[in-house]
Amino acid sequence: MPRRPILDFWYEFASTYSYLSAMRIEALAAEAGVEVRWRPFLLGPIFAAQGWKTSPFNLFPAKGRYMWRDMTREAAALGLPCRQPQPFPQNSLTATRVAFYGLERGWTPDFSRAVFRAEFGDGRDISEPGLLSAILSEMRLDAGAVLRDAQGDTNKTRLKAIVEEARSRGIFGAPTFITDDGEMFWGNDRLGQALAWAAGDRPAGVK
Amino acid sequence: MPRRPILDFWYEFASTYSYLSAMRIEALAAEAGVEVRWRPFLLGPIFAAQGWKTSPFNLFPAKGRYMWRDMTREAAALGLPCRQPQPFPQNSLTATRVAFYGLERGWTPDFSRAVFRAEFGDGRDISEPGLLSAILSEMRLDAGAVLRDAQGDTNKTRLKAIVEEARSRGIFGAPTFITDDGEMFWGNDRLGQALAWAAGDRPAGVK
Repeated sequence: MPRRPILDFWYEFASTYSYLSAMRIEALAAEAGVEVRWRPFLLGPIFAAQGWKTSPFNLFPAKGRYMWRDMTREAAALGLPCRQPQPFPQNSLTATRVAFYGLERGWTPDFSRAVFRAEFGDGRDISEPGLLSAILSEMRLDAGAVLRDAQGDTNKTRLKAIVEEARSRGIFGAPTFITDDGEMFWGNDRLGQALAWAAGDRPAGVK
Repeated sequence: MPRRPILDFWYEFASTYSYLSAMRIEALAAEAGVEVRWRPFLLGPIFAAQGWKTSPFNLFPAKGRYMWRDMTREAAALGLPCRQPQPFPQNSLTATRVAFYGLERGWTPDFSRAVFRAEFGDGRDISEPGLLSAILSEMRLDAGAVLRDAQGDTNKTRLKAIVEEARSRGIFGAPTFITDDGEMFWGNDRLGQALAWAAGDRPAGVK
């Protein structure tokens, strides 16, 4: 049996549209015969490099107001709950370290969906120490040990390298999808096109 | 017979994704039973007010590189030609004045499609005086008279008021679609949702 094509799913926990992708990517990828590789990363350092100290949705208030209305509509259309957490954007550092730490252990997708659901489904603050612990415990993991190791130097250093990889690949927002052959798609609106491309279905005439 | 719902289509000639909407909005609106009101405007003053002196696709090079690749794919999927004009963004001031001048005369949609096709289909420079003249003449209009009146004080002043209306309604990019009841949708990716909303089809639970 041939290997299934892989789609890298780069996501940021503070990103509203990453939530919409995270909650449905596995089902859509299974339909398309594509394997998803979850790639949690941090947009903060990438935004900071272009002079942004917070989310563009806060820097540009008209865009931010529109985004929340659009999220309300898009989430409703997908049957997902939508609540705005306070503050926005959330500090996603610890959650991202934990999600990254889980990659070799196989529980990153479950953990990430639980974080997104708490944050944008229930409006919870994902920087609260207790929230991540509760999610990990619910998954029958040793929350104390995971949080300690995820915040250890080894994991922190490896995550930094991943953020640098994201930047060097030209990632400027989230979610971003990258196929096996390096084709990049940005935004929840491109999830369908990214999966189609990964599965070998490209627009006529595009190389 | 009841009046058809109206969808305002705010577009900017320098905007790549406005091209993708302009070329297909009438056919899609007819299918949806919606009437389109073409609303040419200028994004430059709105960008300038937030400190941007050029297109965000130039200010943020990674985003700009991605945008052109995305345009190539999206145009191909829609069966539209796509060429990058030089320079980018194009100076759209005269073309916008002409399109705005045409509104009460009924030829703005034809003129606008011709401008977009020249600019992003053929890669032509729409600030060339000869190009706009040729388009107007092709439409059997008196190009000299139109260009003179479109650049007269009356038309310029009225266009300025329209740009201020756009800003005050929260428009921050193009294309933007606004329904009769004030619902705003941003981006070519939302054309379908905007038409559905205009026609009375809303996501469950959204007010």
